[in-house]
Parts: sequence; C-alpha cells; structure tokens
Amino acid sequence: MSSENVVIKDRLSKLRAKMAEYGIDYYMMPTSDFHNSEYSADFFKVREYFCGFDGSNGTLVVGQDFAGMWTDGRYFIQAENQMKGTGVELYKMMNPGVPTIEEYLFQNMKEGQTLGFDGRVVSTSIGEKLEKKLSAKKISLKIDKDLAEEVWTDRPALPCHDMYVLPDELCGKSFGEKLSDVREAMKKVNAKAHLLSKLDDICWLTNIRGNDVECNPVILAYAYITMDKFILFVQDKEVTDEARAYCDKVGIELKDYHEIMSFISGASFDGDVLYDKRNTNFLTYKTLSAKADELKVALVNKKDPTELMKAVKNDTELKNIREVYLRDSAKLTEFIYWVKHNVGKVEMTEYTAAEKLDSMRAELPGFIELSFPTISAYNANAAMAHYEATKDNAAEVKAQGMLLVDSGGTYMGGTTDVTRTIVVGEISDEIKKHYTATVAGMLQMADALFLEGCTGRNLDVYARRPLWDIGIDYNHGTGHGIGYILNVHEGPHSLRWRYAEGVSEAVLEPGMIVSDEPGVYIEGSHGIRIENIIEVVERSENEYGKFLGFDHLTYAPIDLEAIDTRYMKPEHVELLNKYHKMVYDKVSPLIQDEAVKEWLKEATRAI
Amino acid sequence: MSSENVVIKDRLSKLRAKMAEYGIDYYMMPTSDFHNSEYSADFFKVREYFCGFDGSNGTLVVGQDFAGMWTDGRYFIQAENQMKGTGVELYKMMNPGVPTIEEYLFQNMKEGQTLGFDGRVVSTSIGEKLEKKLSAKKISLKIDKDLAEEVWTDRPALPCHDMYVLPDELCGKSFGEKLSDVREAMKKVNAKAHLLSKLDDICWLTNIRGNDVECNPVILAYAYITMDKFILFVQDKEVTDEARAYCDKVGIELKDYHEIMSFISGASFDGDVLYDKRNTNFLTYKTLSAKADELKVALVNKKDPTELMKAVKNDTELKNIREVYLRDSAKLTEFIYWVKHNVGKVEMTEYTAAEKLDSMRAELPGFIELSFPTISAYNANAAMAHYEATKDNAAEVKAQGMLLVDSGGTYMGGTTDVTRTIVVGEISDEIKKHYTATVAGMLQMADALFLEGCTGRNLDVYARRPLWDIGIDYNHGTGHGIGYILNVHEGPHSLRWRYAEGVSEAVLEPGMIVSDEPGVYIEGSHGIRIENIIEVVERSENEYGKFLGFDHLTYAPIDLEAIDTRYMKPEHVELLNKYHKMVYDKVSPLIQDEAVKEWLKEATRAI
Repeated sequence: MSSENVVIKDRLSKLRAKMAEYGIDYYMMPTSDFHNSEYSADFFKVREYFCGFDGSNGTLVVGQDFAGMWTDGRYFIQAENQMKGTGVELYKMMNPGVPTIEEYLFQNMKEGQTLGFDGRVVSTSIGEKLEKKLSAKKISLKIDKDLAEEVWTDRPALPCHDMYVLPDELCGKSFGEKLSDVREAMKKVNAKAHLLSKLDDICWLTNIRGNDVECNPVILAYAYITMDKFILFVQDKEVTDEARAYCDKVGIELKDYHEIMSFISGASFDGDVLYDKRNTNFLTYKTLSAKADELKVALVNKKDPTELMKAVKNDTELKNIREVYLRDSAKLTEFIYWVKHNVGKVEMTEYTAAEKLDSMRAELPGFIELSFPTISAYNANAAMAHYEATKDNAAEVKAQGMLLVDSGGTYMGGTTDVTRTIVVGEISDEIKKHYTATVAGMLQMADALFLEGCTGRNLDVYARRPLWDIGIDYNHGTGHGIGYILNVHEGPHSLRWRYAEGVSEAVLEPGMIVSDEPGVYIEGSHGIRIENIIEVVERSENEYGKFLGFDHLTYAPIDLEAIDTRYMKPEHVELLNKYHKMVYDKVSPLIQDEAVKEWLKEATRAI
Repeated sequence: MSSENVVIKDRLSKLRAKMAEYGIDYYMMPTSDFHNSEYSADFFKVREYFCGFDGSNGTLVVGQDFAGMWTDGRYFIQAENQMKGTGVELYKMMNPGVPTIEEYLFQNMKEGQTLGFDGRVVSTSIGEKLEKKLSAKKISLKIDKDLAEEVWTDRPALPCHDMYVLPDELCGKSFGEKLSDVREAMKKVNAKAHLLSKLDDICWLTNIRGNDVECNPVILAYAYITMDKFILFVQDKEVTDEARAYCDKVGIELKDYHEIMSFISGASFDGDVLYDKRNTNFLTYKTLSAKADELKVALVNKKDPTELMKAVKNDTELKNIREVYLRDSAKLTEFIYWVKHNVGKVEMTEYTAAEKLDSMRAELPGFIELSFPTISAYNANAAMAHYEATKDNAAEVKAQGMLLVDSGGTYMGGTTDVTRTIVVGEISDEIKKHYTATVAGMLQMADALFLEGCTGRNLDVYARRPLWDIGIDYNHGTGHGIGYILNVHEGPHSLRWRYAEGVSEAVLEPGMIVSDEPGVYIEGSHGIRIENIIEVVERSENEYGKFLGFDHLTYAPIDLEAIDTRYMKPEHVELLNKYHKMVYDKVSPLIQDEAVKEWLKEATRAI
C-alpha cells in the first residue's frame, strides 16, 4: 500500500477550513497567471502546492469531501505518480466517460451552493461558460478571493524585477507616437477609454521591458488609456529611477499594480470602454462590466489595437531584426559544427548540448535571455511534441541518428526562433524521405507569392503539400508571429489551415514576421522539424493590387546529409541551392573560425 | 430636348395614388422573386414596369415628388437611355457622393412617415438594416402590400408550370429517407419545426422538379416540416395527377402556395422553429418571428440542413453525373470542331454560335433545359464579366482571335457547366501566355491533394498561383457547387480565397462537385476562362486522416493552339498531357463522326 502524503493532506484540510469560513463549497485552481502568460511564475503554482502535480497543464477542484485534478494525456502517468497518497483523484481529460470540470460541477454541486476561484487566473470565456452552466442550478460564483493567500504561508513572492526603458532609436517609434495611433483606433470604435491587459502589448506600446515572466521580457502590468491620460499599473518596487524619469517625461502616470480592481470600481468613464475579452481575466471583466452598467456606458469588445500595430514591424525594427537574425544564425551554424564534430567524441546529452548552445548565444552582443527554454531532442524523443530534457533526465547523444534543436534568444534588436534537425550519424532512407519533404515544405512556403488580402489559411498548403504527398501531416500550425525584443509567440497572424467557425484571421501585411516550421513526428522512431523565420515583403504592385512574398530572416544550413534529391521536385532543389548560397554569402563573414567557414562552404554546396 | 415617356409617367402617377391610399410615403421596388432566385420571372419585373430599365440589377424608389433608380456600373448607360423622359433619376451605386438607398431614405424621409415594399421580394438582412436605420427617425415599414398588383393590370401571371416527380432510382435516395435525415438534424438543434424557403432545397428533398424559374428546374414552394408532418405549399394548378398521387403515397400534405403567410400566422408550434435567415424573405421572417414571440418559442437561425445533404452527392447521383458529363463533354467537343471548321466560312455571330451549341445539347438524351443562358463572347467582349450577346446585338465571329463559350445543360442525370475559350484565328504571344497560365491554374487546382478538413479557402491558391506569378488576378471565385438536375450554382462549399470576418465556409467532402474556373480578363483586348467541373474523391486514409483529391468530370479538349510550353512548369505539361489522354480515351467512343474523332486525336496529342 502506498503511504499517505501527509503534507498535501494537511494543506488540503487547511484549504477546506478556509473554504468553509468563506462559504465556498467547491474551489477551483487552474494553471495561469493574471494575464494568461505562456509561463507562470512560482507564485502562481497553487495547484501544484495543493496536489503535488507540477506539469504545465492541470486544474485542481476541491470540495469538502472531494479533490480532483484534471489534466491531459501528456501527463496521466506523471500526475498519478506525483499525487500518490494525496487522496486527489485524477480526471483524464478527453478520455471517454470522463466529465469535464464544468460537467462535474454541474452534476455534483447542489442548488444554492457556491463555487470559488481566483477570478484573476481564469479567462473570461471559461468564467462565462461556468457561470452560464451553473446558474441553471442557482449556483453562485465567488471569484474575488485567492484562498491560497491565507493557507500557503511560505508562498514565493509575485515576480517583481526592475523594469527598463528601450531607447526610442531602438524602437523606431516613440511611446507618444504609438499612443496617438492607439487613440485614433479608439476613436474609430467610439471608445473614450481603453483597458489593456496584455503584457506584451503594454510593453510594446510603452517601450518598456522587464523580467516578470520567464523568457518573456515583460512587466506585470495593466494600462488604462483615455484621450488625455495614460495610467500604467505596475508594482512600485520595479520602477527604477530611470524608468520613473522616463514615465514623467512621456506622460505615463504610475499607479500600483494591485490598485487595478479598485481603480476600475471607482472609475468614472465618460464614454464607451474598449477592451479585448480574449485578453481580460474574469475578475477584471466582471469588475469592468459592473462599472460600465452602473455608469450606463457600453463595453466595446474588440481586438486590442496594439496587437496588429505590434505585429507589423517598422523599418527600424526590421533593420535590427535582420541583423540579429544573421548573428543568431551564425551562432547556430557554429553550434551545428560543434555538434557534428564532437558527437561520439565528448560526452554529450540532449541537456548538455542545449547548455552549450545557450552559452554560445549568451556571448552575442545585446543578449538578454533565451526566448524560450531550448528544446533538444534526440531520435525518438523528437517525435514527442512536448518533450523536455532535464539535467537528470536526458538522452545521451550518440553518433547515430539526429538531434532536433529548437531554440532562440531575445537580444537588444530582436527575438529569434529557429529549428534545425542535425544529422549526427547514420539515418535510414525513410528518414531522408521525411527530412527532404519537410525541407521542401519549408522552402515552398517561403517561396509563396500572393496578393495582399491572403491570410495564413490561404497559404498553409504550401508547407504541407510535400508531406501530404507522402501521406504525412503534422499536428501543429505551420507558423506564428514573433515579437520584437518581446514574446516569441504573438498574433494576430499565423500560418494554419484548419477552419473553425467564427475564429478570426489576420491578413498578412508587409513587415509582419512569421515562423515557417513544418515537421514529421513518427512515434518511437524520429522527429524532424525545420524552422525558418520569414518576413512578409512587397514584391510588386499593379491594377490587381499588391503582390507579396516572403524573405528569409534565418540563414543556417539545412543538413544535406539528410537530403535525397530523388524525393524532390526540380524546383525544390533550385530553392534549396538558392537558399544555401545566401546562407554562405551572408553568414560566413560573421564566422571567425576558418575550419567552421570551410565546413559551411561544403555544407551549403549546390546539389 | 428629349420627349416625355408618358407611359411610364402615367404608371408612376397611378402608383402614387395607391401609395397615398395606403398611407405609404415612399415605395421601394428591388429585383428579386420571393425566394431570391438567380432569375426572376416577368411577374416580378415591377421595377422595369415602373421605370423602363430592364437590366439584371436595379432598385426603384418612388415618393410623391421623387423617383430614383439605383443600379451598378454595368448599367449606367443602359439605364440612362431606357429611363429618358420618365423623370426617374439615376443613382449610380458606389460612385463617390452617391447615397445608398438606406442613406437616401434616412436623409429624405420625415419622422413618422412610412416606407412600403413587398416584404416577399426583400431579403431579411436588407429588411432588418432598413428597419434599424429608419426606426431612429420613427419611420415605420409597411411590407405586406404589393402595390403593383393593383396598378399593373396586364401583369404576367406568377410562373406556374406542371411539376414532375423524379423516380427514386434516379435520385438514389427516397423522399422518406431524406426526410428522416432532416428530422435528425432538427433534433440536434432541438427544433420541433422547420420552415424551408429555398427552392432547390425543397426540390432536392421531395425529389420533385418543376419549371417556375428560368434555367432552374424548380417549383415555387415553401415546406413546413415537423416530426410527423410535411406540408408543401405550392400552386394548386401545378400539381399534376401523377404528382398528387406521389404526394399522397409518400405523405406530403399539399397546401396552396399563397396560404403560407396565413398558415404561419395561424400555426401552433410546439417547440423551437429552425429556419435559415439567409434564405427567408423579410415578410416571412417577420410573420414567423411575430408568431414565435406570441407562442414563446425560439427561432433557431441555422443553415438549412438540406444544404449540405444536397451538396454531398450520393453514389447514384455521382454515377449519373459522370455519364452525363461525358456526353455533355463529347457534345461540346463536336461544337468546338464545328466552330473551328466553320469560322470564316459561314456567317457566325456570338449569338448564332450559342444557338448552334444549344441546339446540339438539346439532342442529348434526357435533355431538360439549359442550366443557364449560354455565354458566347468574342475577343474583347470576353473581358466583360457580364457580357450577354443578343440576336440583335452580337459580334461577328471572324477567323481571328478567340471565342469564349460558357454553357451547360440540365439533363435527367445531372446538371453541367463548362467553359472553353476556342482559338479561331491568329492570337498574340501575350494571349498565349495568359491562356497557358489559366490552363496551368485549372489543372493545378484539380491536382490538389489535401487532408479532410480543408475548405476552398485553403486550396484556391492552386488555381491562382500561375496567374499571380505573371502579375494577374481574376476578380471572381474559382469555383461553386453545382446541383443534381437542379441549379447550376449551389452551396455551401466553394473555391474562394478572400477572407471576410464571420463568413462561414464549408469543408470539402467526398461526393461534392465544384467548378474550377480561373480566367484572365484584359479590358478592350481579350478574355480567357477555362472551366472544368471536378469531384471531391478520397485518395487514401491513414492515422493522419483522409487524404482527398479531385477527379475531373469534364473531358473536353483544351486548345493547344493557345498553349506555349515556355510558360509552363514541367509538371503542368505533364498534367495537360495526362488530362488530354483521358479526354481522348473517354470522349472519342461517344463521337460518331470520324472526322471529328480524327481531329480530337490531334487536338489532344501530347506536347
């Protein structure tokens, strides 16, 4: 029999006592910060604290006689192990017969009971769905209480790091200029005020950066914008003297981060309020909408205007991005050389290889941080979508097969993202076929020529077709937008093909940058992904409109050892040779080591 | 000075007297029948009767001191000529400074006034827009009065032709089977009743056909469906004995077409009512929604379930369609031969050429009618999107340039649609370049291979890319669905690329058929369109899903005299040769005349 986990049981019983105290019958703990960021800091690991499971996705629901944790297929085994002896039941999401949280609560809660959760870590769409479903049973919600606050005594602090200001010359556009654009957009929808909750949008708009979310150079903040005011809600402690002087100068009024809810409750909107429901947490939304009702103004739910402005890079940003990508590509080239020449000779694991690359990147001028934790996956591990090697759990990289490395950095001048699958030894003919088709898809997408008005849905087949032709698909989008000294994933545009009723798309515009990353994932055998970042550029204009295309931003060699021209159309060979010539011409001047340069010449030869 | 048109002026003054009698200040007359059919019968030509303009698009608005007619750029000159001396002002739609009808009425009508129109010939979307805009000025609508009825004494009758019943063996599925499917779909949205207004959907569902709309083998009808009843509203006079016996047998209750509104007003829905707002006219919608309010049931606005069922052809339909398309292709081949061998020798105009083709089609077994009026356009005329040659106004076809012919027939076994652009003499190198790119686009689209889940928006670039590569686009969709012994245009699927927020798309499914018709239109010079109909077929299935592709249904030669391989990729040449081999193999056995057969061999030779 497994022993009891008394630590967790004790925590749960303290939580239940607090629930009783506040009249909460069920308490829900999902996995998110207040801004639905890609990474949550330790402060937000409430679910982990109360059940022991530390995977990246999971929601814990606790009642007086019940505790259940919902997670997806990636984590069934891990969750079962980590929750042993806690009494917490595992609910395997998407498995037949397993209720969703909503269904479970609807079936098990009684009329008149209360569901509690911290409304700041729940998205408005989920909050509204729960509210609607449970209201049929007269169940009420209590969303303004974070019970962990009172139980978790040694809780880590909310992230709070010094903010810093980017010079206008680096941003290409001052805060003042950006703010006028936002105000113009507000006028277009007749909004007198705008509440902005999205961290990278706030940072882009203010030209401020920070370090409050892992790998995202952002500050925890809200912004409130009217025609004559700009209020930034941010933790007092992270405002440096330099930042305060900047804010004074450009007219940013500072208020403490924790004042946001009381500010909204006490606000006096003199007209409609623009907000973006997708980016606004449930408590903020409810507070905002109660206030709007009271003041008899409307809430205008539209995409944050900053989203599109941020996505279309300006000339300064583009110039810096192009340079940063070249330097980053040169560094990756040196890393590929290092892997190929050291595999089988030095001790190398997925983890140490990633460490090597990370340390090489850190040498580059203007390096700030990794843009995401480096993915380093050897052979069959590369077939797992969410594989993460750790120091203690990493495969040895031997002189056989392939190593997939997906990595990037954020620099003063841009944020990068690139994937190469590196041949480190013998590979099968089947792998060559898959590799060649992946490369053909990546190059064919980058070679697209299209009329302005196209979205990623029109073009995605270019990347997939060579794989579809051999009966293979990859279960992820082809591409995402990338921030400028910001998050590695941003919208509104993307390269995806699947249709979903009502999902909005964004037209591709010159100045947008997007990843182009087809792949092949064969369970238990191998995984291949080749990712370049490409820039939307104008090719020509005539009476039919603007014809657009893509320029590569990434220039790193594609492994010719895995290319078999028997699986390529003549135009794919041509595209590869053309690309490789550019790689050598652009990257070799940035490489000091003659041996690497020599190798690169061979690695980029025409085939 | 132009003389007065006393006939029109007299009609307008009688209309104004009636308007005064019914308290209507402005009366609006658009161009539509009660079901928004593609063609309106003479009965519906009210606008033409009151202003003289007979183009295919126009809306007349009459006040006591005002008469204005709104039409689009195709018709400015024609409208001006036809309305001379009538006192009716021309409003040039989309021209700068010209108000829309909605804007005009909002600006010129006074508070408390009444706008009248026949709510049966106005779509619900337009009706609702007018209602919303004008309600701000307290203007009311009177939509249940067709004033033409009382003024237009020699008005043609409402179309009323004998209906007929298709045998179940020809339809592949009986009315009873189709009805169960519809009832299943109703249950899925919790509807107890369903009002169906779309004529081709009603005909598809009942296996009944008629002749009430030009080129559409449909009856004027409404259908009302509950879990135990099926009521067909149709003019008594068109119910033949055979049709009545069929209806009795399969459980179709007949009521007169004109009873529909009073039926709805007197109905007793015992649950929610499914309807499709896109297909329901404004009067029907308002009557239905008033009744639903009264009975406290909801209206469920969803796509008519029949739309998708009708679009996915069953095996019997597909078998018949394939045969019909072969015969139709053979006939078109004979016509192309006739054109090429008679041009410059016999008198030939665009109109007589079309007559020739129409009469040839009429010889085919099971011929019912043309599926649309044949488009026959010579040289520069082919560049005009809506060009229509008439007996008195048709260009002579000389032995120079090209003749574009877009045509089709409805047969007992299918409805066809095909376009070929036929070289009749010398053409320029530029034309060859355009022609070759058009053909490459058509063939490349048909060669698509894609995972189930794709819609036309994912694939449209295949047809356009060869044209985009030479800086050309065509300002229409690439493809539309086609009915089975029904309308030549049907949804829900299509091949189009442009994104519009909220517009719904349909996933391509095996059994759907769709046109593939890229083109080039150079004003004042030439027009090219090549149209095949293609069928969605399953190619393979594996763990990634079903891989789909297209099979051609149309097999008619593509004019090699206009093909220049310098403008083709190797795979385009391969596709053309492969297609031409199939054309010869499939079509030559259907051709009797040895000379034609001989010519076809040469016309489909590998290049």
